[in-house]
Amino acid sequence: MSVPEPINPPPRLLMGPGPITADPRVLRAMAAPLVGQFDPAMTHAMSETMALYRAVFYTSNEQTFLVDGTSRAGIEASLVSLIEPGDRVLVPVFGRFGHLLVEIAKRCAAEVHTIEVPWGEVFEPELIEAAVARVRPKVLAVVHGDTATTMRQPMSDLGEICRRYDALLYCDATATLGGNSFRTDAWGVDVVTAGLQKCLGGPSGSAPITISPRAVAVIDARKHIEEGIRDADDVERGTPIASNYLDLAQIMDYWGPRRLNHHTEATSMLYAARECARLLVEEGIEHAVARHELHGRAMLAGVTGLGLDVFGDVEHKMNNVVAVRIPDGVPDDKARAAMLADFGIEIGTSFGPLAGRVWRIGTMGYNARTDAVLVTLAALEQVLRGFGVSVTAGGGVAAAKDVYADA
Amino acid sequence: MSVPEPINPPPRLLMGPGPITADPRVLRAMAAPLVGQFDPAMTHAMSETMALYRAVFYTSNEQTFLVDGTSRAGIEASLVSLIEPGDRVLVPVFGRFGHLLVEIAKRCAAEVHTIEVPWGEVFEPELIEAAVARVRPKVLAVVHGDTATTMRQPMSDLGEICRRYDALLYCDATATLGGNSFRTDAWGVDVVTAGLQKCLGGPSGSAPITISPRAVAVIDARKHIEEGIRDADDVERGTPIASNYLDLAQIMDYWGPRRLNHHTEATSMLYAARECARLLVEEGIEHAVARHELHGRAMLAGVTGLGLDVFGDVEHKMNNVVAVRIPDGVPDDKARAAMLADFGIEIGTSFGPLAGRVWRIGTMGYNARTDAVLVTLAALEQVLRGFGVSVTAGGGVAAAKDVYADA
Repeated sequence: MSVPEPINPPPRLLMGPGPITADPRVLRAMAAPLVGQFDPAMTHAMSETMALYRAVFYTSNEQTFLVDGTSRAGIEASLVSLIEPGDRVLVPVFGRFGHLLVEIAKRCAAEVHTIEVPWGEVFEPELIEAAVARVRPKVLAVVHGDTATTMRQPMSDLGEICRRYDALLYCDATATLGGNSFRTDAWGVDVVTAGLQKCLGGPSGSAPITISPRAVAVIDARKHIEEGIRDADDVERGTPIASNYLDLAQIMDYWGPRRLNHHTEATSMLYAARECARLLVEEGIEHAVARHELHGRAMLAGVTGLGLDVFGDVEHKMNNVVAVRIPDGVPDDKARAAMLADFGIEIGTSFGPLAGRVWRIGTMGYNARTDAVLVTLAALEQVLRGFGVSVTAGGGVAAAKDVYADA
Repeated sequence: MSVPEPINPPPRLLMGPGPITADPRVLRAMAAPLVGQFDPAMTHAMSETMALYRAVFYTSNEQTFLVDGTSRAGIEASLVSLIEPGDRVLVPVFGRFGHLLVEIAKRCAAEVHTIEVPWGEVFEPELIEAAVARVRPKVLAVVHGDTATTMRQPMSDLGEICRRYDALLYCDATATLGGNSFRTDAWGVDVVTAGLQKCLGGPSGSAPITISPRAVAVIDARKHIEEGIRDADDVERGTPIASNYLDLAQIMDYWGPRRLNHHTEATSMLYAARECARLLVEEGIEHAVARHELHGRAMLAGVTGLGLDVFGDVEHKMNNVVAVRIPDGVPDDKARAAMLADFGIEIGTSFGPLAGRVWRIGTMGYNARTDAVLVTLAALEQVLRGFGVSVTAGGGVAAAKDVYADA
């Protein structure tokens, strides 16, 4: 076959719902040379990464580490390791990623119960509590921020509710962690997972996770299918975890002091995940959240200033993404293609009922910054004008600048 | 918390059984900027990667792509997507990684049958055929090269045997692909998986896979748990695949022309996997295999020249790793620590019955080269001397040089 050239991607400013442009420092970290799996330098880097993510998750959970896969691998590792066949799982669905939790829980042979609100809304905690009281789930599985709708579910009451009804609380914080306040311990969340490709400013491919001691106990109780060669001090309890690759009991033994061989750690992705958290801790996590809040607010003001309508309950919007209704008569595909081809800027549409009806514009991670917001608004104005939309000339950039001036 | 410094790993020459030192060109490829998931540049890079791996696997299988995880993710994706609960699976076990196939197949609720030979041997095809005839498995799952023992199972007859008994043939080629001849189509292997961290010269974290049309048919027939939002033209057949993340039916729809959203592709790992295959195709795959054979032979001659004993059936040794018996009285841990601390070179021990009894020395990927072989032999001589072993002074390097002189 003919040999292609080395990879040479075009320059893009990724202002969609994620993945977003990675911080160049994170990409450079991945170019560091490899060390062996059990090299002291490797285990030291693993321990540092655990400590960094404890800070990012606001937790003291010893079991805080990385699952080797995309954010979806972290979700599935959590659910497959917690859920035994027939267990009841409750999922409050307020967007596409709630449906994903349902789908994964079904694959785990759970008895899945759902409650739903229309896309663009979130749940009152009372509604969730009533469902927990009715269903009595083993696991309440909640998405924190669903990029499909841009909504951010209030989480602070859910841990207390789960404890009252003896349920475990799982939260998918893929789209919010690092750009929105998240308090694992204070909120009583038992298992939280994320990905690098949103507010953490890295590439997809590593899933940070944190697990509370009571969730660890549930998972460890299920150890009992062992590889041919493994310590024999594990007792048979419960049904085995249906996955080997995503078996959190084994992965904890790999990251923990026993250092039992499991997969071969994806070292370059570990370097990336470590650098994402390191930069966040260096900036200060509250500073990073405030930065996302500021640039998210500027983008919201900007699209409003252009005369566009925003989708959903803005009071409960995530900091890092806004959904704007596509003006009548503007062809979604062509408009986004023009943003990409003419201006090198990517924005996204949404899924299901919102596909082709809204654009999702992100301001997260490395791209939660003034120039990225302003250039996106400037380009969007030109593209809309090109499709004959009557937009307020300069209105987007001016409105965003007003937000920055007041900050 | 105190903020650690950017990652700065010590220089290491990784001459164990893998992971090995990645080619700097592969590491640099990972530093390329990201593009969006459905950007034409991204889908083009995905298609190029598929074509490159078709060449590496010697296959015309359309379904040739990457699973986002380590090599173990590729193994589990294959087995969980092929196996329904109660299906019979036959695993010929000749080392640790055969046990891993057993373990994963059990997690898939398969009825697992095994045949075994002592570590250090491989199976005669007749032995495998007899077991296939007896068990009549749905899947025959075989490791090509088991680094635990360094043995390479002859594969060329197994496809024909499987066709005779209507079984699917899965092969784990993690440790061999790129450094040992592998002929997916000519050998009739239905599903093959690999990883980057061995002969492909990259970091762990991406699992190349190829799937024959008849295996695709088996997998596609199992589509029927769908995400809330997904095309509704899939029919209910068979039991659903027990994993979402490792569901090859969905992953094929993501890499295929439908481009259905599944996980967010780990773009930087894709860049790495593409570069690994690109370098291999540029070199010529047969040239790369011959290079592994040459340097593997030089290392074998070298350790023999030092006066060390080699473990196992050398006639069936993989090109890229040799197992040498640790001389009596030499403390495994301390000797390997001395190699690492004094010379910056990592070699490995093995698992189970061979733990602490053999060292596994690799010559693969970027490290299948003369200076890596000679410096390892020179350092090993010094370390053994330090532990009072009577080695042939200069015998290792001289014997390896003889091999190179004859080549």
